[in-house]
Amino acid sequence: MTSMRALGRDRCLQLLASVPVGRVVFSMRALPAIRPVNHLVDGNTVVIRSNLGGALASTATQSGAVVVAYEADTFDLDGHTGWTVVVTGTARLILDADRQARYERLLHPWVDEPMNCVIGIDCDLVTGYELAPA
Amino acid sequence: MTSMRALGRDRCLQLLASVPVGRVVFSMRALPAIRPVNHLVDGNTVVIRSNLGGALASTATQSGAVVVAYEADTFDLDGHTGWTVVVTGTARLILDADRQARYERLLHPWVDEPMNCVIGIDCDLVTGYELAPA
Repeated sequence: MTSMRALGRDRCLQLLASVPVGRVVFSMRALPAIRPVNHLVDGNTVVIRSNLGGALASTATQSGAVVVAYEADTFDLDGHTGWTVVVTGTARLILDADRQARYERLLHPWVDEPMNCVIGIDCDLVTGYELAPA
Repeated sequence: MTSMRALGRDRCLQLLASVPVGRVVFSMRALPAIRPVNHLVDGNTVVIRSNLGGALASTATQSGAVVVAYEADTFDLDGHTGWTVVVTGTARLILDADRQARYERLLHPWVDEPMNCVIGIDCDLVTGYELAPA
């Protein structure tokens, strides 16, 4: 059996930055929605890219900012160990040209589709757990 | 580069059933919430276990049923290939004693904590994508 141990904020952000992919969680037409994306962590901001027609980007455009959760995890499926980190915070389109260009240089979408939005998620609330042998 | 291809419902449920772990997505105090859990797929129902104090279980108890999303994915982080499946549907506590006992036999929580709720998520809406070399 495995036990869960809460992780501190710094450790959570370190683990989040150690993996390229996570999942952005938001509401779309009053339904819970989730999309895997790749990310980078820049200080207290999780940066993702999306296409302007994408569900999150269009919500963020309509309302200026939207509260999302962003989750990443790594599990050993045999050993039942691993970790999960969830960031909850405001997501905003990054419109500053210099920041936008910098993130576009650093973060390359996996999918061969136009990704003309850069979105920053503030790490307002950061929680995480480690699953380790009990 | 990788391209995205939509998957049919049957293939999505097959992929979901092929992995032990996913992430349940719901709203908690008007904020998006996400928790990794292990699951099984029984026909058109995704079955998970939770502790009664758990956020999802308490929401489901209060309102009888709650709409959630359930996501699973597998990615090759080097090749940028993989798949993601999202089920959106009503989550309900399974209260029928026989079904509850059957799922408790089949689905064992990873974490050494009391998991006295069995929750079924109806596969009302099933979407999925495969990421393959373009």
